[in-house]
Amino acid sequence: MTTEKTDNQIADALRAVAERKSVTDIYFVACGGSYAHMLPNQYIVEREAEQLNGIALNAAEFKARAPKRLGESSVVILCSHSGNTPETVEAAEIARKAGALTISLTHDLGSPLDIASEYTVTYIHEPTTISPIHSASVLTRLTFGILEAREGNKKVKDLNQALAALPAIVESVVKDHESAIAEFAEAHKREAIIYTMASGSNYGVAYSFAICILQEMQWVHSAAIHAGEYFHGPFEITDFDVPFIQLIGVGPSREVDERALAFAEKYSKRVTVLDANDFGVSKLPESVAEYVTPLIFSPVLRNYANKLGEAKGHPLTVRRYMWKLEY
Amino acid sequence: MTTEKTDNQIADALRAVAERKSVTDIYFVACGGSYAHMLPNQYIVEREAEQLNGIALNAAEFKARAPKRLGESSVVILCSHSGNTPETVEAAEIARKAGALTISLTHDLGSPLDIASEYTVTYIHEPTTISPIHSASVLTRLTFGILEAREGNKKVKDLNQALAALPAIVESVVKDHESAIAEFAEAHKREAIIYTMASGSNYGVAYSFAICILQEMQWVHSAAIHAGEYFHGPFEITDFDVPFIQLIGVGPSREVDERALAFAEKYSKRVTVLDANDFGVSKLPESVAEYVTPLIFSPVLRNYANKLGEAKGHPLTVRRYMWKLEY
Repeated sequence: MTTEKTDNQIADALRAVAERKSVTDIYFVACGGSYAHMLPNQYIVEREAEQLNGIALNAAEFKARAPKRLGESSVVILCSHSGNTPETVEAAEIARKAGALTISLTHDLGSPLDIASEYTVTYIHEPTTISPIHSASVLTRLTFGILEAREGNKKVKDLNQALAALPAIVESVVKDHESAIAEFAEAHKREAIIYTMASGSNYGVAYSFAICILQEMQWVHSAAIHAGEYFHGPFEITDFDVPFIQLIGVGPSREVDERALAFAEKYSKRVTVLDANDFGVSKLPESVAEYVTPLIFSPVLRNYANKLGEAKGHPLTVRRYMWKLEY
Repeated sequence: MTTEKTDNQIADALRAVAERKSVTDIYFVACGGSYAHMLPNQYIVEREAEQLNGIALNAAEFKARAPKRLGESSVVILCSHSGNTPETVEAAEIARKAGALTISLTHDLGSPLDIASEYTVTYIHEPTTISPIHSASVLTRLTFGILEAREGNKKVKDLNQALAALPAIVESVVKDHESAIAEFAEAHKREAIIYTMASGSNYGVAYSFAICILQEMQWVHSAAIHAGEYFHGPFEITDFDVPFIQLIGVGPSREVDERALAFAEKYSKRVTVLDANDFGVSKLPESVAEYVTPLIFSPVLRNYANKLGEAKGHPLTVRRYMWKLEY
C-alpha cells in the first residue's frame, strides 16, 4: 500500500460522489470491528451535515432492515478487511442493485467486496499505529470529503493537518504509557469481566475493545457502556472490584464522560482512564480534534490489548470458533 | 390514566405535526429504559419512511452531539417516566429553543419534562402487561401517526388493530410460559453474568433487559449482543456454561436471529429462547407484526425478571445507588 495509491482511490470515489445527481443519505455498513469504525462517522455527519443523513448499521441488519430510502440518492460505504465477509458483500450487492453509489474499504483488491463495489479503497493495516491511510482514517477522510463535495464543508484541510500529526502522537502516547500498559496487563490478567465506557465520537472504540479485543480475542466478558446511559442502569453493577476502562474525549461529550468517571472512580478501585487531553490533542486544529480522538484511542488501546494477551498467555491471534468452523 | 385522555393527547400532538410547515427529522431522545423504547421507533422510520429521518439518542448524547439539523423541521420525542430526568428535561429545552416541535411522554403531568415540552402524552405504567396506552405503544402510535401525517403511510389502522390484540396475547404467553419462567429463575439465580441477544425491532428490548433488569435491578453482569454482530466478536465467549437470553423476531431479521441461535445453542447449554412465532403473532396484521413484537417481549420478559428477583431474594426494587445518592 502506498499513500499515493490510497489518496487516488479516495479522490476517485469522491469525484463520483461530487458528480452524483443527488445525495441524501450515507449508510455506513460493516460488521464487528469494521462496524465499530463506522460509528464515529455517523457522529460526524450528525454534528456537521446541513442536509445529509448518516447512519451506521451492521451489514446483516442493513440487509434485513432494507431502508426504504436506499436508492440512487444514497452513498453506501462498506468495510471488510478480508473483503470476504458474506453479509458485507451481500450488502454491497443490494446497495448497488438499488442504485446507490458503493464505496468499499478492503485490504484485498480482487476480493468479493472489491468486485461487488463500484469504488474500492485499500489501506494500511497495522492496529498498533495510525496513519492517514489506515482504514479508520480513510473512513474519516471519505466522510468529510463527501460533506465537502455535497455541502461545501470546510474542514478537510484541518482534518488532513490533524491526520498528519497523529502518527507521532500515537507513538509518543504509547511510549508515555509503557509502564501504565504493563501495570494494566498484570492487574487484569485474571479478570473474568472488564467493562469499557465512552461517549460521543469515542463510543465506537469502546465498543470495538469490548467485542473484538475482550470477548473475541481474550475470552473476557465485556460490554461497552455509553457514559450517558451509565446512570440509567449499568452504574448499579459498579463495585470496588469491577474493572472499567474509560475513555475521556475532548468534544462536547467530555462532560458526559467526566460525570460517569467521577462516579465510577468513587465506587470502583479498578478504573483505567485514558484521557485524550493527555495526548497533546490541543496542538491539533480544534475544529476536528474530537473527530480524530478515536484514531488515537484505538491504536493506543491495541497496545494495552497486546500486553494483556501476553500477561494472560493468551495471544490476540487465538480463536476457538472464528475461521475454524462453519457458522 | 384513561384511554380517552391518552388518545386525545396523541391526537393533539399529531395535529401539531400535521400543521407543521416542514418536518424532515424525528429525534427520539431519552435515557436508559426509556431510550431502549425509542430504538424500535428509529427502526420503524428506516423501514417505512419515504423522506423522514429518524434517530434515537441518549439525552446526554443528544445535548452533546447537538445535531446540526436540529431546528424548525425537527420533531423531538422525549420520554422520562418521572419527568424529572435532568438530561431529558434539558434536551427538551434545547430542542424547543432550536424551534423543534417537542412531544414528551411522562407519567407525571406538572413535572419538569411536561413543562419543558409543547405536547405531553401520559400513559399507563404496568411493566408486566401491555395496552394501547402503555408508553411503548404510545411511542409506536406517535411514530406511525407522524408517518401518516407527513407521508400518507397507511399502516395506522393495522397498528391499532394489532395493539388492541396485544393485551390478550401477552396474558396468554405469560400463562403458557409459567413453568418456563419458574425454571429460568431457578436455573439462573446464581449466575454472575447473563447475556441477551436480539436484532431488528427487538434489539431495544434485549438492551433494556441487559441494562435495566440485569445490571440495574439484579446486579448481574450483562451485555446486549446484536445477533448480526455475534459472529464478529462476541460469539468467542460462548461456552457450555455461558447463559444467553435470545429473542427471535418475525420480521426480516428473523434469519439473523436464527443463525445466531443455531450457533449459541450448539456451544452453550444455557440458552433461553423466546420466539415471537410462538406468541400467535400470525393472527396480527402482517404489515405491522414485526413492529409490535417488542411490545410483547418486553412485558413477558418482565415476568421472567420478577421471578428471577424472587429466586435470588433480590427484589427488582432494590438499588444501591439510584435515587439514593447524588450523581
